[in-house]
Amino acid sequence: MRAETSVPTTTPAETLAAVLDFFRAHTPVAAIGIACFGPIDLDRGSATFGHIATTPKPGWAGADVVGALRTLNVPIVFDTDVNGAALGEHRWGAGRGVDPFVYVTVGTGIGGGAIVAGTPLHGLVHPEMGHVLIPRDPDDAFAGACPYHGSCLEGLASAVALQRRWGAAPETLHAEHDAWRLQARYLALGLAAITAVLSPPRIGLGGGVMRAPGLLARVRAELATVLAGYVRTPEIVPPALGERAGVLGAIALGQMALDGREYNSAR
Amino acid sequence: MRAETSVPTTTPAETLAAVLDFFRAHTPVAAIGIACFGPIDLDRGSATFGHIATTPKPGWAGADVVGALRTLNVPIVFDTDVNGAALGEHRWGAGRGVDPFVYVTVGTGIGGGAIVAGTPLHGLVHPEMGHVLIPRDPDDAFAGACPYHGSCLEGLASAVALQRRWGAAPETLHAEHDAWRLQARYLALGLAAITAVLSPPRIGLGGGVMRAPGLLARVRAELATVLAGYVRTPEIVPPALGERAGVLGAIALGQMALDGREYNSAR
Repeated sequence: MRAETSVPTTTPAETLAAVLDFFRAHTPVAAIGIACFGPIDLDRGSATFGHIATTPKPGWAGADVVGALRTLNVPIVFDTDVNGAALGEHRWGAGRGVDPFVYVTVGTGIGGGAIVAGTPLHGLVHPEMGHVLIPRDPDDAFAGACPYHGSCLEGLASAVALQRRWGAAPETLHAEHDAWRLQARYLALGLAAITAVLSPPRIGLGGGVMRAPGLLARVRAELATVLAGYVRTPEIVPPALGERAGVLGAIALGQMALDGREYNSAR
Repeated sequence: MRAETSVPTTTPAETLAAVLDFFRAHTPVAAIGIACFGPIDLDRGSATFGHIATTPKPGWAGADVVGALRTLNVPIVFDTDVNGAALGEHRWGAGRGVDPFVYVTVGTGIGGGAIVAGTPLHGLVHPEMGHVLIPRDPDDAFAGACPYHGSCLEGLASAVALQRRWGAAPETLHAEHDAWRLQARYLALGLAAITAVLSPPRIGLGGGVMRAPGLLARVRAELATVLAGYVRTPEIVPPALGERAGVLGAIALGQMALDGREYNSAR
């Protein structure tokens, strides 16, 4: 690790200029990996390749992230923050040797990335696992926090949803609060959908909300209940790289460019 | 196509002996592809590789399908019926050039297979897309027909579920019956889960229930409503190979063995 920095997310112009300055101060740069919040445009053939698509972050919808770094004239691999984290965990952490491997983060939002056949999964766009629609608990009157889907997984189980449903920050809810039973149930339903579609042997489950004591064990137990023995239950594990899964994943994305695996590179 | 036959599914001993007789009558056989109902064991390292796992079909739980054909001493590729159909459509039908490509069949049960990076998707086991848990419609009092999950996609929207909920065979329900509004809603919720996890540009949607006039168009419209513009809506298309997707998929599986892509072969 030659150098490290952190830049606040303000406006695209200001933030991306600070990122560019960082790389200019650390030449030579051989390649860049970007693990970016999304949804993003990963289609090399698209006029808006490398841009942010829709986002509730003010000013960032349509921002040209890859374009801002093109003046460095190096290969750039661009992917979602969660695909980056999944790749980091797959290469150096909790997902070594596991394929397909899925990484899900539960914080302000909920996102999931997947590595299939060694490569971050893309398609029409990219996975948006936080927006899977799950059955609401019959006792849960909360309408859901997602502006698009209401009660999708993110709408029911993100930190924002917890805060709004219970009128308190998640970290202030004691371990026996009913919030955690419901939270484990919703996360298990989301992981069950991922299991039904992708069948990963192991899923990494991280993000700020997962720091709640006992939550991981409750999610594991609830997932086994939800799957009901029809198919085997995947292992649910904490990230081995902790908070650094994303940034190490971005380095792994940059290495893919150097290894000639520039699946969505741009100069 | 050198020869073709159809064998009724009675007991494993009787059915598999008839299959073996067919191949013995048509030597030389270079390789065999099996697209089998499931769940099945696809793990080459497992003592029960090539066996059926759980199934409600009497007598078939634990049946050794691959073992029954081992005496032919040719490479055998074994996969689910829906992964086979997905591969057939990917190679010769509605999924040509599409990756990931998903094929979902709606009949007595509901199943989905996926081709990712050109290969049928496996993991801990294999996709079981029919068993994704979806939100129940608030006006639907039917408990669900799945013995494992009650109201999963298959439990709410298979032909068996339709028959039990409405007390009539699906093909007898007229086009304006409320059954079809609900059916389109449930199928769209299942396809939305697949989209959130795998992001396929196109999904093939077949099986007996999809022959209902106007249902495909209703599913397409409902899927766009459910996804709510957050990410792009995949194309939903009928299978190009019709009833033959599965059997042609099995031929494609056999060809993978001949091409040296024996991802789960056994002699």
